[in-house]
Amino acid sequence: MVSTTTHEIRTKGQGDAHDLTGLVERALAHSDLREGLATVSVIGSTAGITTIEFESGAVSDLDALFERLAPRHADYRHHLRWHDDNGSSHVRAALLGPSVSIPFSGRKLALGTWQQIALFEFDTEPRQRQITVQLLGD
Amino acid sequence: MVSTTTHEIRTKGQGDAHDLTGLVERALAHSDLREGLATVSVIGSTAGITTIEFESGAVSDLDALFERLAPRHADYRHHLRWHDDNGSSHVRAALLGPSVSIPFSGRKLALGTWQQIALFEFDTEPRQRQITVQLLGD
Amino acid sequence: MVSTTTHEIRTKGQGDAHDLTGLVERALAHSDLREGLATVSVIGSTAGITTIEFESGAVSDLDALFERLAPRHADYRHHLRWHDDNGSSHVRAALLGPSVSIPFSGRKLALGTWQQIALFEFDTEPRQRQITVQLLGD
Repeated sequence: MVSTTTHEIRTKGQGDAHDLTGLVERALAHSDLREGLATVSVIGSTAGITTIEFESGAVSDLDALFERLAPRHADYRHHLRWHDDNGSSHVRAALLGPSVSIPFSGRKLALGTWQQIALFEFDTEPRQRQITVQLLGD
Repeated sequence: MVSTTTHEIRTKGQGDAHDLTGLVERALAHSDLREGLATVSVIGSTAGITTIEFESGAVSDLDALFERLAPRHADYRHHLRWHDDNGSSHVRAALLGPSVSIPFSGRKLALGTWQQIALFEFDTEPRQRQITVQLLGD
Repeated sequence: MVSTTTHEIRTKGQGDAHDLTGLVERALAHSDLREGLATVSVIGSTAGITTIEFESGAVSDLDALFERLAPRHADYRHHLRWHDDNGSSHVRAALLGPSVSIPFSGRKLALGTWQQIALFEFDTEPRQRQITVQLLGD
């Protein structure tokens, strides 16, 4: 069995993060599946998804790491192509990845109490994001 | 069909790594599945899972990369929140991700000879880790 | 239902990247599946898979990021083990990960127009790569 739902989220641009765990738990509660794999993915090449303890300190620490890895105000060859300013967004998103897959069993996700599924916006402008939650199993 | 098993692993704290490939291969051998997707995930927000050539040099090189990216003894805003010392653990784990998914076919994982599925412990204390191995397919 | 296909790709060594999206779309078109999860993985511990806007600028920016993170000409303990020169390849591949999973629905992958599934070769020599495309669903 497969259940696929899509969800819209409005982001504020680079550094913004959203906790998606409740959204996945509700999709699971509304489905008939008990055991399987939950995949959460974002459409687009300037945002990423992972798990993190979703408190403002840890989220801000991850943002600071990405700023060290790929500073927003640096030279990117992507800028030459489209005269964009979001080269940092593209490399951050490619490094983090667009999706995360978490098993569930007994209708419960294999996540810790202090572990949330989170969307990280890397684009330099606010974006309307389309999130896909897919449940696959029995 | 879905097969979900959980496994406990005792880690020694930051820098410790464990080869999980045998565990996944045994789960596959004990299941009735021949073709599908194997997902291995760790519960918690201070450990991660990927694949690597599991020899001490490469494992140590990856640990050194994480120490450059997010030094253990640096300032993290997460520390202000809980008076923890594991801010480096949280950002490393979020960057690496909590799970990896590998297809299998003919009961064999699509891994190379020198490619193992590995758990990386990032927390600053030894931890009891719960690993989920989920096989989904036919 | 599961559909698993393997594909060979010849790479030119570190810095080479290949757009795999067409390959996944063709596998989907040739299958009977309408809704499910597409996983693309590479065998071996010196290459990785993610999504990116596949234009030469962004691809080159990501390569430059990896060169900053894990320079090719640096000291790696992996070199001591095998007298290899590809320590940088191993840590880059472990960080990026060997696979990506993208949901599909109505036979269409949940990807943006400017978002492609891409293989990144990190090894220092040209390699013959084996890519697995697995479709799981209904």
